[in-house]
Amino acid sequence: MDLQKRIERGLERAITFATAGGQPAKLGAAMRHAVFSGGARVRPRLCLAVALASGDRNPEAADAAAAGIELLHCASLVHDDMPCFDDADTRRGRPSVHAAYGEPIALLTGDALIVLAFETIARECSKSPDRTAPLIATIARAVGMPNGIVAGQAWESEPDIDLHHYHRAKTGALFTGATAAGAVAAGADPQNWLALGEALGAAYQVADDLRDSAADMDEIGKPCGQDKTHQRPNAVAQLGLDGALTLLKETVHRAADAIPDCRGSDMLRELIMAEAKRLVPKKLAQSAA
Amino acid sequence: MDLQKRIERGLERAITFATAGGQPAKLGAAMRHAVFSGGARVRPRLCLAVALASGDRNPEAADAAAAGIELLHCASLVHDDMPCFDDADTRRGRPSVHAAYGEPIALLTGDALIVLAFETIARECSKSPDRTAPLIATIARAVGMPNGIVAGQAWESEPDIDLHHYHRAKTGALFTGATAAGAVAAGADPQNWLALGEALGAAYQVADDLRDSAADMDEIGKPCGQDKTHQRPNAVAQLGLDGALTLLKETVHRAADAIPDCRGSDMLRELIMAEAKRLVPKKLAQSAA
Repeated sequence: MDLQKRIERGLERAITFATAGGQPAKLGAAMRHAVFSGGARVRPRLCLAVALASGDRNPEAADAAAAGIELLHCASLVHDDMPCFDDADTRRGRPSVHAAYGEPIALLTGDALIVLAFETIARECSKSPDRTAPLIATIARAVGMPNGIVAGQAWESEPDIDLHHYHRAKTGALFTGATAAGAVAAGADPQNWLALGEALGAAYQVADDLRDSAADMDEIGKPCGQDKTHQRPNAVAQLGLDGALTLLKETVHRAADAIPDCRGSDMLRELIMAEAKRLVPKKLAQSAA
Repeated sequence: MDLQKRIERGLERAITFATAGGQPAKLGAAMRHAVFSGGARVRPRLCLAVALASGDRNPEAADAAAAGIELLHCASLVHDDMPCFDDADTRRGRPSVHAAYGEPIALLTGDALIVLAFETIARECSKSPDRTAPLIATIARAVGMPNGIVAGQAWESEPDIDLHHYHRAKTGALFTGATAAGAVAAGADPQNWLALGEALGAAYQVADDLRDSAADMDEIGKPCGQDKTHQRPNAVAQLGLDGALTLLKETVHRAADAIPDCRGSDMLRELIMAEAKRLVPKKLAQSAA
C-alpha cells in the first residue's frame, strides 16, 4: 500500500473512533473538517518513509505514529488560526475551524485532536508494548514544552525572541519528531535520523517564510503577509528574496546529504526533492527557473 | 508517604521537566500557575487511593497516572476560564491564567499541559511497558471525544443537550477515569471500579451545581452563578435547594456502597465522606445541620 493510502486510512480510523455515536455532533464535524481538508501530509509521509527505510518491522506502530503526528499538526493549525493568534478565517482555501464552527468548538477541536493523537498511538500499539512509551515520549517532545511546537508559539510572547530556539521549536521539532518516530516505530535508532529531521524543518521554515512573503492567497489558501502583520521574524525580510531562495536550496541539499546509508535512501531523496519543489511559490519557481 | 505528598512530588517532577532551561519563560510560569494554585487534587487522590486499595503493585505507574490526570484537569480549567467559554478572571481566588498571562499563553498552557500529561505517563512508565498503553488509553478516554470532558464541554454548543451524556462526560468521565487508572496502574481489573467513579462524578456534579448556585465568590474563589449566566443545566434550578442537597446525599451513599470489597475499602469510604463534606458550601452545610 502506498504511503498516502496508509496515512489516510490511519487518520480515518482515528477520527471514526473519536466520533463514534455521532455526538456531540458539532465537535465531531469540526474535528473532521480540521483533519480532512487537503493537507499535504508532509510530516506523516516523512515518518512512514523513515520507518520504511528502516525496515518497517512494525507497520502498525508506524501507521499509528504517522496518524498521531498529523493529528497534532492539525491541532496546532486550528489553535494557530484562532483570533488570539493569527485570526485567520481561511485555511487551505476553506473556512478555518473557528470561522466555520465558532471559537469554543475550535478550542475544543484542538484539545480533542491532541488527546486523540496519544490515544491513537496507545490503542494501535497495544500489542507492541515496547514501542508505546518511547513513541509517545518522542512525539510529545516534538509538540510540548520546552522544545516542541507549543514552545515555538510561546516564543512569540517573549520580549526577546531566541531565533534559533524559536524556529527549531515552532517548525523543526515536529519534523525531527517525525523522523525519530519513524525510526522508533521500526525499532531503529532515532539518533541516526535527527540531522535529516532538523535540516528538513529548517528548509520548511524558509519555504514557509517565502510563501508568506511572496505567494498570493489564491495559491496557498490562507492569508499571506502574516509575519509582517504580527511582526514575526521572516527569512525574506532578513535576507531578501534571492537570499532566502539560496538558503532554501542549500538547506534542502543539507537534508538530502543527512539521509543515513540505508536501503530506502533513494526513495527518501526523491521525496525530499519533490517536497522542496512543491513548497516554493509558483511565481518564484518560474522566475528562478 | 501520604497521598498528598506523592501527588505534589509527581506534579513537581512533571512541571520541572517541562520548564527545564527556563525558556520560553512566560509559558513555563503560566503552566506552574495553572498547576500549583491550591487545587484540592480530588481526582489524583482518588486514583492513588484506588491503586493503594488494589495493592499498589506499581507505585511509579500510579503516581504517573495521578499526575497525568491532574495535569489534564488543570488544562481543562485553563481553557474553560478563557473568554470564549466562562470568561472568568479569577480561579481559586487568584487571577485565571488568561487574566495573568494573556489569551495566547492561556491557550498554549492548556495545550502544553495536555501533552505533558501523556508525556509524563510515557516517561515515568517506560519500565512498565505493559501498563503504558492501557493507562494512556484509559485516561485519554476520560478527556477526549466522544465521551470525555472535551465532549462534555462541546455538548454546550449543541442545540439539544443530552443531559445524561453531558454530565457524564463533563464531570463524571474524569472521576471514572481516575478510578479505572488507579486500578490499571496496580494491575487490577478497572471494571470493578467504574461504578464508584460514576457515582462520585455524579455527586461532584451536584455539588458543583450547589456551589455555583448557593456559595459566594469569597468561598469558592471563582465567579458564581455561571450556570445561570451561560444557561447551562443546574441541579438546583431543576430540583430546588433541598432537592439538590438530598440528591447529593443519596449519590454520596451510592458511591460509598459501590466500593468493591478490598483491603483499602475503609480508607476509601473515609476519603469519600470527607470529600462530600468539603464540597457542600459552608452556609448550606450549617443550615442543613
